[in-house]
Amino acid sequence: MSSQELSSFIGRWLPRLEDEMRDMLHSKEAAVAAHYGMMGYHMGWLDEQFNTQISPSGKRLRPMLCLLACAEMGGDPIQALPAATAIELLHNFSLIHDDIEDGDETRRHRPTVWKIWGVPQAINAGDGMFTLAFAAMQRLVRRGVSADHTLQALNLFTQTCLKLTEGQHLDMSFEQRIIVSVDEYMRMIQGKTAALVGASVAIGALMGGAAASQVSDLQQFGEAIGLAFQIQDDILGIWGNPEETGKAAGNDILRRKKSLPILHALNHDRVGEQFETLFDSELSPTQLPKALDLLEQAGTRQFTEAAMRHQHELGLAALRQALDERVENSMLFGLTDGLLNRRS
Amino acid sequence: MSSQELSSFIGRWLPRLEDEMRDMLHSKEAAVAAHYGMMGYHMGWLDEQFNTQISPSGKRLRPMLCLLACAEMGGDPIQALPAATAIELLHNFSLIHDDIEDGDETRRHRPTVWKIWGVPQAINAGDGMFTLAFAAMQRLVRRGVSADHTLQALNLFTQTCLKLTEGQHLDMSFEQRIIVSVDEYMRMIQGKTAALVGASVAIGALMGGAAASQVSDLQQFGEAIGLAFQIQDDILGIWGNPEETGKAAGNDILRRKKSLPILHALNHDRVGEQFETLFDSELSPTQLPKALDLLEQAGTRQFTEAAMRHQHELGLAALRQALDERVENSMLFGLTDGLLNRRS
Repeated sequence: MSSQELSSFIGRWLPRLEDEMRDMLHSKEAAVAAHYGMMGYHMGWLDEQFNTQISPSGKRLRPMLCLLACAEMGGDPIQALPAATAIELLHNFSLIHDDIEDGDETRRHRPTVWKIWGVPQAINAGDGMFTLAFAAMQRLVRRGVSADHTLQALNLFTQTCLKLTEGQHLDMSFEQRIIVSVDEYMRMIQGKTAALVGASVAIGALMGGAAASQVSDLQQFGEAIGLAFQIQDDILGIWGNPEETGKAAGNDILRRKKSLPILHALNHDRVGEQFETLFDSELSPTQLPKALDLLEQAGTRQFTEAAMRHQHELGLAALRQALDERVENSMLFGLTDGLLNRRS
Repeated sequence: MSSQELSSFIGRWLPRLEDEMRDMLHSKEAAVAAHYGMMGYHMGWLDEQFNTQISPSGKRLRPMLCLLACAEMGGDPIQALPAATAIELLHNFSLIHDDIEDGDETRRHRPTVWKIWGVPQAINAGDGMFTLAFAAMQRLVRRGVSADHTLQALNLFTQTCLKLTEGQHLDMSFEQRIIVSVDEYMRMIQGKTAALVGASVAIGALMGGAAASQVSDLQQFGEAIGLAFQIQDDILGIWGNPEETGKAAGNDILRRKKSLPILHALNHDRVGEQFETLFDSELSPTQLPKALDLLEQAGTRQFTEAAMRHQHELGLAALRQALDERVENSMLFGLTDGLLNRRS
């Protein structure tokens, strides 16, 4: 697989994905245009007055994994397109609600939906987009997918939605607690992040005609690389180059985010107490070198990088299981490898 | 049909419905028990500490209509039970989110979910219950419903979810406006209330083996009686006997709720302006007689009762279309008739 082949795949399918998503969000009735307008704003297609605008959207990583997995199994990605659409709508529904729940006022350099239209309308716009995700899944039959296969995919999708809400429940609960273990954190990101990446690959594979064992291997692959991505985010959140990440150095420490490196340090035998004292106070940027020094003493960076590599390797093993010797030539391998070497 | 037959049907199926709903909300994992506990609290099964408690639950009207429609078409209600469960879970998800959106602090004489666990966790518990509603629908295949029929039912269900969020969007938008027309109000309750009642009957009929035209007639029946129920609520909200409704006389006027009678008066040629002046001020109970007198002058009560009767008749005509001469013997007729003569 050449990176050119991957780029060409993305170049071909990204516009079709955007079209399918726009089609789902299209409102036929003027009276409720604002309801769908808020969703279009969140997606980056409309401005606050619901005029067309091109704003930065997400990377569309999950739907691309879905389409790639379908192609990898010898299927026509067009059959997986409704599922890819559903996955991206689900991801974005969860962002609309997460922004309310976390009180985040900006996303992708724009005010969040609740910040503009208030919490009540934003909750409801999220509910609408959640519904549209299920509606998109049901379009699979229009692309010639059998009713049985559609229900199998829907089942996987629904189980994933449940895991998302469980992960979000844990994440919010952790905010209320002083100490959270590394294992608890892994359980949380398994639900909040990894489950949907796993489902994206698994549903794509299912649409591509994969056997049950391959679907299961590819789901494991997706979950493991989902965990690896999240841990990589956690690493960049502390040691990323501010010029590349666009965030301040040690950003996650200053934001007091309970990420994996920070939980490692908080739970550390030797420096744990010291780090906790520092972390519990109103941490100012001048205290950052001290905090980073404690992480250094605890070997936190090595621990976190090893945890990321471990998930990456687990993922590749599951991918090898699914694809045999084809693994190095697969676009799934190429995409994963490229993303896990990113610096921002 | 005797009212005894109806009571015996409800007595037989209500406990099975409750069991199926409990089974859906059952959590297997201690770490997320509180997530499902909040849902169980809302359903009236658990107290704030998640101990078993029997609190007043809703009337379960929608799932009962679903099971009755299935039986009416000659089907076994056991096949419609997952759909009835889904419908009641969907209704309750919408109540959890509505309570946040409206800032309501109590429901059925208990604090609302957001009031106890905060808005972020309550949004997420609602999302979880929304997901479980879709999961319940997918259980239809376990009861021997074909994949095609399951997808048809799911499609109806999903379209209804969309209408719910559209209706809720309109309801919240109306709060921000001074004048809302009677037609706009009807469009709003069509989405917020009637659509789900219509879908309950239609999905039950579909599971009972009804032909497409019967499903469509019964959906119309459900939507019309859903509108009639809502208008009846609006009538009781002003002219209901406080001893029977448990609410103050003229309650909806004092709460400044934009219900159908109030919109009729606000839009009235002759008394509209006077009523608006009164309504815009901080209305005290001493001004209630004046407000009621203006409604009297506008003929509001007659208008509203006629609107209710009109929907009731439309509903019965659609029911007759679906059932032919059997209509008066049907339990759907009996249940509807009983409910539209209620006084609280």
